[in-house]
Amino acid sequence: MAIIVVEVMLKPEILDPQGVAVGAALPRLGFTFAKSVRQGKRFEIEVEGTPTAAQMADIEKAAATLLANPVIETYVVKVQA
Amino acid sequence: MAIIVVEVMLKPEILDPQGVAVGAALPRLGFTFAKSVRQGKRFEIEVEGTPTAAQMADIEKAAATLLANPVIETYVVKVQA
Repeated sequence: MAIIVVEVMLKPEILDPQGVAVGAALPRLGFTFAKSVRQGKRFEIEVEGTPTAAQMADIEKAAATLLANPVIETYVVKVQA
Repeated sequence: MAIIVVEVMLKPEILDPQGVAVGAALPRLGFTFAKSVRQGKRFEIEVEGTPTAAQMADIEKAAATLLANPVIETYVVKVQA
């Protein structure tokens, strides 16, 4: 059994209101470390056995069609150790 | 400049309706690789210079108070290469 992780973030040129809200809330709570914050999504997909090359290609396709919107988002597909 | 990544996922025993919805949508689109899907959040926090130990401790505290709800969620703090 393997876990495939798909990380989806808004492209840098797209406004990220959630990230801005978090970035504004941090100093109010006394945390001053952040210069900027971006918020994205993370999917953990459980796959039977070791993922094959065909499965990985399928997951890439699913990421581009269902998990992320490639017009405004970037995504990364990783196999979790 | 460093990017600190905070990954927030619902605890395994907590129902994840978003993940269930994605897991149900995949086979409808012809993707049959997934045994189960969990959805979580991902924060990219930009920090000036190299993060110090005190800053990392602060980010851990911020993750536990603002970014994640430790009652139902787990979080991981990482420095992105």
